[in-house]
Amino acid sequence: LRRILIIGGSDAGTSAALRAREVDPAARVTMVVADRYPNYSICGLPFYLSGEVGDWHALAHRTASELEGHGIELLLERRAAAIDPAGRTVTVAGRRGRAARLPYDRLIVGTGAVAVRPAFAPPEVADAFSLRWMDDAHAVKGALAGRRPDSAVIVGSGYIGVEMADALTRAGLKVRMLARRGEVLRTIDPPLQRLVRAELQRNGVEVIDGIEPGAVESRDGKLVLRCSPRESLEADLVLLATGAMPESSLARAAGLETGIRGAIRVGRGMETGVEGIWAAGDCAETWHALLLRPVYLPLGTTAHKQGRVAGENAAGGAAEFAGSLGTQVVKIFELVVARTGLKESEALAEGFEPLTIQIETPDHKAYYPGATPLHIRLVGDRPSGRLLGAQIAGDRRAEIAKRIDILATALFHGMTVGGLLDLDLSYTPPLSAQWDPVQAAALAWLGARTPAR
Amino acid sequence: LRRILIIGGSDAGTSAALRAREVDPAARVTMVVADRYPNYSICGLPFYLSGEVGDWHALAHRTASELEGHGIELLLERRAAAIDPAGRTVTVAGRRGRAARLPYDRLIVGTGAVAVRPAFAPPEVADAFSLRWMDDAHAVKGALAGRRPDSAVIVGSGYIGVEMADALTRAGLKVRMLARRGEVLRTIDPPLQRLVRAELQRNGVEVIDGIEPGAVESRDGKLVLRCSPRESLEADLVLLATGAMPESSLARAAGLETGIRGAIRVGRGMETGVEGIWAAGDCAETWHALLLRPVYLPLGTTAHKQGRVAGENAAGGAAEFAGSLGTQVVKIFELVVARTGLKESEALAEGFEPLTIQIETPDHKAYYPGATPLHIRLVGDRPSGRLLGAQIAGDRRAEIAKRIDILATALFHGMTVGGLLDLDLSYTPPLSAQWDPVQAAALAWLGARTPAR
Repeated sequence: LRRILIIGGSDAGTSAALRAREVDPAARVTMVVADRYPNYSICGLPFYLSGEVGDWHALAHRTASELEGHGIELLLERRAAAIDPAGRTVTVAGRRGRAARLPYDRLIVGTGAVAVRPAFAPPEVADAFSLRWMDDAHAVKGALAGRRPDSAVIVGSGYIGVEMADALTRAGLKVRMLARRGEVLRTIDPPLQRLVRAELQRNGVEVIDGIEPGAVESRDGKLVLRCSPRESLEADLVLLATGAMPESSLARAAGLETGIRGAIRVGRGMETGVEGIWAAGDCAETWHALLLRPVYLPLGTTAHKQGRVAGENAAGGAAEFAGSLGTQVVKIFELVVARTGLKESEALAEGFEPLTIQIETPDHKAYYPGATPLHIRLVGDRPSGRLLGAQIAGDRRAEIAKRIDILATALFHGMTVGGLLDLDLSYTPPLSAQWDPVQAAALAWLGARTPAR
Repeated sequence: LRRILIIGGSDAGTSAALRAREVDPAARVTMVVADRYPNYSICGLPFYLSGEVGDWHALAHRTASELEGHGIELLLERRAAAIDPAGRTVTVAGRRGRAARLPYDRLIVGTGAVAVRPAFAPPEVADAFSLRWMDDAHAVKGALAGRRPDSAVIVGSGYIGVEMADALTRAGLKVRMLARRGEVLRTIDPPLQRLVRAELQRNGVEVIDGIEPGAVESRDGKLVLRCSPRESLEADLVLLATGAMPESSLARAAGLETGIRGAIRVGRGMETGVEGIWAAGDCAETWHALLLRPVYLPLGTTAHKQGRVAGENAAGGAAEFAGSLGTQVVKIFELVVARTGLKESEALAEGFEPLTIQIETPDHKAYYPGATPLHIRLVGDRPSGRLLGAQIAGDRRAEIAKRIDILATALFHGMTVGGLLDLDLSYTPPLSAQWDPVQAAALAWLGARTPAR
């Protein structure tokens, strides 16, 4: 009887547990979950706070009893305090503070990431919220429902920042967003960032560039953000969307090696350097399928894949994580922005000789009603012709997410930009063109690489 | 100076002409077009007849003057009458019957396909229409505008049949459709055909199975279709959507070899067996990228690709057509149905040991508003695990066309079903799930192949 212990009950942990039970139905699989919310859709929090999702229970990918139905033992509201790799035990703090030592044969660490809380806004400041776990969402929802705030300042302009700008606007607040580095969604190239900015502004979000908050204080029931240079912003609520870092302290204390940004070092099988211990998800490094080296790229999709690999291997299998391409999509009001692979500056930094083109083309034949412009950027390596990355922005109805996935699949196979023209993609005038827009972008790239004589 | 002559002005011919001029800007490129409509979107005809496209001129991919701007000489309303491969000339009938002999160095045959007109409805029967070219569309439009018909019978239930059922219903007609073989859209497996049938019926289209028209006659201003067994159907208009066959008579008369269904035999470079002559599009055979042999699979997307290859090679290049996977999508009212690769019966006929699964899963996280069911079928080879084909049906807003394209790209690379789980696909709750529905289908397939112990 194999005892598989899993620390963490989010995407990686749950995937690992389910897969372990599939591979070895006799295994005793136990999941130690710090809060009361195993297998919740963390990506769904903004949509709960916006009011689009009415009941937070709906955010559960699976209920606790469904997980138990798969033969997974859940230990909720227990925080793992220490790992003893030699003795193969994990010390777990109980609900009333009593600690227990849980023995394991195989251990999977899926402790996730923690929100980076900037020093100017320590946790004790009321109404200045981070957003990472369900409890954070409950706190924000409580503030929205209780004090009925009119205004919010969002510090940070990454994925969570822009999603929460949308969400809080829908919830009725006047939103200002601080783009501290002067970039909004800097995972995409600046020309597409401008579209994001325009969509935010079109919906009443004020984007403020280049100021850095230095302190936050309460005054007359408002929060006042003191910024440099010489500016102060008032709001009823402050959302700190200032990034996340791997929660690897437990692992590090147990002697597991950590690497990039403090994430747990893992091999392609998600094994750590310590016998009998795997790690997966936002606490661990991620193999990049194009760069062929580990990076830190915490994403829910990746956490599921890595968790599945870790679970399979902990149950005696020999799976490999194929790697990430950093494929991401976000909906901001009516705009969808997606990316895969490398953006231009990343390609340059990696030593490629990128040629980047951007086209604007209708999502389907212009003669058919409802056509809407797609903005497609392709990054390719000029000497080799290899596709390096792509970004698409446009209307949410324009099949952008799955168009980026065509390109992600092409990238996965190391295709050239020219090779995209060989793909047999579907076409009907209401949905595409005889060359799909992603192929039209490839044609433009080829044209730019070899200008017409 | 290379004289490149192209017979045909539709997708293949135009692509060939444009590519030839790109590769050899000094080439003299001449396109002989039988009608007045070079480079028209034949796929768009149903949307013009439905009224969704108001002006038929909008169906031009490019206008005649745009083509001429690319340095292409257009000979409109000239029908090629004979090819002399030894003398390298083409005899072209002029507008007033006078013939001319055009010399060429390189010839590209892109004569397309002709609608199969069933014997019971010879062309002289008024108000019984085929639909293949612009002139056909004008004839149908004329009948719709002139006699204001109330009812139509569509003979045939393939792509044109179902699109025209949609179009004529939108145009205000009561539509009945004869599914002669008892199948509606038989390019997909029967369980998805049922969804097509339901969508047609939901929109008032009556689908009639298993009767075969034997004669059509005019009576009191109506058409009467006499069918077997013992039934007759009355309608104001009859649309014959009974398939198409390659227009290869000119090529055959010139000694070019023909093969499957009479299509012109071509190599991977679209070369015919005769020196200096290439063929492309619906008149030619198509290399199948999965079956690795020629088939007859006339599609606009394929015609563009083949034309591009033929044009490049006629201009001195060495391009290869990568092959088709039979990727197709159609919108029928609010339903979209897409396919790629082999359906179950095709896989069986090809000697595979197909395992087919079908799942119903929301297009995005069910908690986010607007989720709609996708019906996904995956066909995989049980012993090897190889992906063989896929079909998806569901709401037109559910990114079905580009989801099938993810699978078409996977097929192009010979992926296994299990390999789909390695793809780094985009996810945000309003647009997908942590495993995209196509990956959820892969998980189901793997589960069916190796039942849980």
